Amino acid sequence: MIGRLNHVAIAVPDLSAATALYRDTLGATVSDPVPQPEHGVTVVFVELPNTKIELLHPLGENSPIAAFLERNSSGGIHHVCYEVDDIIAARDRLKEQGARVLGDGEPKIGAHDKPVLFLHPKDFVGTLIELEQA
Amino acid sequence: MIGRLNHVAIAVPDLSAATALYRDTLGATVSDPVPQPEHGVTVVFVELPNTKIELLHPLGENSPIAAFLERNSSGGIHHVCYEVDDIIAARDRLKEQGARVLGDGEPKIGAHDKPVLFLHPKDFVGTLIELEQA
Repeated sequence: MIGRLNHVAIAVPDLSAATALYRDTLGATVSDPVPQPEHGVTVVFVELPNTKIELLHPLGENSPIAAFLERNSSGGIHHVCYEVDDIIAARDRLKEQGARVLGDGEPKIGAHDKPVLFLHPKDFVGTLIELEQA
Repeated sequence: MIGRLNHVAIAVPDLSAATALYRDTLGATVSDPVPQPEHGVTVVFVELPNTKIELLHPLGENSPIAAFLERNSSGGIHHVCYEVDDIIAARDRLKEQGARVLGDGEPKIGAHDKPVLFLHPKDFVGTLIELEQA
């Protein structure tokens, strides 16, 4: 069912510093910061040959990564995103097997303008998983 | 400098359960467990089209993931591994820029029989990074 690893998301307390780290120290290609107010984050995309890293910084109030950064003040890996061909079929299959989908269980339009869902980390060995329609 | 994302490593408290989760619930192709006593882990490889997930379980005493699992009893993302063309050049560049390499700073032969190094998470926004010679 799961396909490509779309991205690894890293929550960072200082977006400029994290961007410089990936660009200058690790020598990767990075984007400009992209504010995504509807998702409560500003994102810098780190392009790797086979996938991408997304550096996430809180934007506005009630950012979904604010609590994570309170617990992990240096930053840390926040979630992984796997692509699926059919997000509704994937959701239904997961729910049948007892996995919990976060929120109201309906896909939302994600940061790449595609439907996404998040799965409960307690059902997936402590890992927050985003599913994105491929 | 950094190239492909070679893998994302997830430390898991129950390797059979985590393998079943990725195989049956998430529908991915998984390997048999591979004991790697020289690295203190047993690994199940989850093959994705563009990279892989490695499920790590402690093997023997002094496993490098034992303390992580004590802090994260449900499991969690342990590290990411980026490929580099020349691990010695990468190490020297990173050290020049003040980044700390774990251990004695010399590459070891990693789980894929290639030279690897680990970088200090405090220097990389709370993320443990493995570098592997491509």
